[in-house]
Parts: sequence; C-alpha cells; structure tokens
Amino acid sequence: MKLLEDRIREEGVVKEGNILKVDMFLNHQMDVVLFRQMAKEWKRRFADAGVNKILTIEASGIGIACIAAEEFGCKVVFAKKTQGKNLDGDLLTTQITSFTKGRVFDVIVAKKFLGPEDRVLIIDDFLANGCALEGLISIVKESGATLVGCGIAIEKGFQAGGDKIRGMGVRLESLAIIESMDGGKLTFREDGT
Amino acid sequence: MKLLEDRIREEGVVKEGNILKVDMFLNHQMDVVLFRQMAKEWKRRFADAGVNKILTIEASGIGIACIAAEEFGCKVVFAKKTQGKNLDGDLLTTQITSFTKGRVFDVIVAKKFLGPEDRVLIIDDFLANGCALEGLISIVKESGATLVGCGIAIEKGFQAGGDKIRGMGVRLESLAIIESMDGGKLTFREDGT
Repeated sequence: MKLLEDRIREEGVVKEGNILKVDMFLNHQMDVVLFRQMAKEWKRRFADAGVNKILTIEASGIGIACIAAEEFGCKVVFAKKTQGKNLDGDLLTTQITSFTKGRVFDVIVAKKFLGPEDRVLIIDDFLANGCALEGLISIVKESGATLVGCGIAIEKGFQAGGDKIRGMGVRLESLAIIESMDGGKLTFREDGT
Repeated sequence: MKLLEDRIREEGVVKEGNILKVDMFLNHQMDVVLFRQMAKEWKRRFADAGVNKILTIEASGIGIACIAAEEFGCKVVFAKKTQGKNLDGDLLTTQITSFTKGRVFDVIVAKKFLGPEDRVLIIDDFLANGCALEGLISIVKESGATLVGCGIAIEKGFQAGGDKIRGMGVRLESLAIIESMDGGKLTFREDGT
C-alpha cells in the first residue's frame, strides 16, 4: 500500500538492531486519517471473507482494529496481556514471548467473546518474528471460531514471522512489507497494489 | 447520554466492591457503533473548544480516542504505562497509582507529541478516584499545551475523582455518571441530555 510505504519513508526512523520507529503515526501518536485508508484497504482485500469479528492485542493494535471494525461492520475484541495475576473467569489463554520487551506474557481473551459463530480477522500493527500473531491464532483455534486471515500494517519481511504464518496456510495481508533496512535504507517488497 | 446509560443497564454487570464490568461493549469487546455515537456526543459538547490533539492512556482508552479523533479531525497520542524500563529520549513523565491493579506505573509521553501549539482533549473510558486523569492532566501541563477538557465514558459519581477534577477548574464531560450501584441497582445522575 503506497500511502503507508510513503509515510514509513517520510516519518519512520531506522535505529540500530533493525528497529523501525513509526511512533509519529502508528504506535504512539496515531494518525486516524491514515488508519481509515488502511482499514479500507483491509476491507478491499478481505471483502469476500464474511468477517464478523476483529481480534487484536493491546495496546497499539486497538486503534487500527477499531477503525477497521467500522469498515467491516463488526465488533473488536482485544486480547489482554497479563503477568499471571487476576486470571479469573472462563478464559482463552496463551503465552507470547516479547523479544523487544524481553519477557513472556500471558495473553487472555474471555471465552464469551469468541466462539464457533465467529469469522475472525486478526489485526495488528507489526509482524516480525510472529510470536504475537501465533498466540492470537492459537486463541482463535481454541475458541472454535473460523480464522479468515490476518491484516498487518507493517511486516518485517526479513524476519521469520511472515513465512511462518503463511506456511501455516493462513491468509496474511500486510499493507507494507519491508524487505531490507540495511544501513538505514528502506526497501519494500512489491505487492502489486 | 441515554444510549450509553441504556447499554450499561442492559449489559453492565455490578460485582462486589463497587466494580462495574462493561467488557461486553467498552473495554474488552468493543462496540464501535456505540463508540461513534459517543464520539459525536463529545464533539457536540466540545464543538467550540478548538481541539487539535486527543490524549488518552493505554489500553482501553485507545479505541474511543481514535473514533473521537475522526470527529475532531485531529491526531491521538496515547500515554504508555511502563515499569521503569526503556525510558529513553525526551519524555514527559508522571506516576499513576492503579487501585484495581494494586501498583504504581510510570506513565510516559514523548515530548515531541505535545507542545504549546496543542489544544488537548483527554479521553478515557473510566473515571473513579481520578488518579489516571490527574496524571494525564499533569503531563499536559508539563508539555505547555492547553488543556481544553476531559471526555470520559463512565464516571463513578460516588467516588472522589469527578469532584476533584472539576474542583481543579477542568471542564469534565462524562457521558454516563453513576450515582449509586448499591445492591447491584444502577442509578445515573441526570445530565439533561
């Protein structure tokens, strides 16, 4: 998606260790004009999928997921990160290793919000090694819902997550795929849009 | 706001210890149709305020803040909760005591996202004792921005936060104010809308 690639080029900052900072518009300050265009693009790509629930994970997935939910005409559920406390009620749970934060989170969704009647689109802001996405996929499977696919804003195509998720047979639509950011120079994968 | 009060009556669950669970539509599952109506109501109430930035705090403020930002035609910044790690860069910081989670968070906003040119509306889902809101207000003051007011979804009117914030001279617009939930019976404050 050219609009998003342009914003990453203009306002993204590449830091040492293959870190891309996009806090100007995506995950600290949030540009909802851009979010609306991203949401319309996910809707275009998943128009035929019968999505009736969006699943995301706190915190920075929530904004894009809410705007996308208006396009799909459905509700959002966000998975909560906990650290082993206050786990009461009927819960879907998994664990996610965060490499950036250097720890393991329990991730929970109340069972009553995902079930066999749901056709779920997972939305998140970043895909790198894929741990968060694998966790959300396992929660969808545990719930008995149908996973229709995953919509990601920015995929780091040089890390293993994208191949791993696509290798599982999951439909994965990333709006911008970074092939390389060696030496601070951003190269995007051609996506034909 | 009658629409929100009705949803709280229909889908809210009162638990022991004056806890109100609204996870069906506000802070775990999120009903963006309702969020859009709430956003329009905040826009109506703050139509004259020249809002050009919305500030919220992760996680459950982000969804309502993003939808509201479309109504106001501005960007959102969300404050991040940390626990003393990774505090780099030029930051506005404060501390917030969470009674529900029983701990103190450092709360941060990058300085580059709030400054004297900003007219800030703070949006959050709940107001009870007011600690989170006081923290966000202190961040706005530290930044040199103008605070135009606070838009809250649900205020627990029987706790001290609302009086405290209004007593500071801050314009506070809560869409539903609960006067009492003794014995599980919800009573709302009349707001004339």
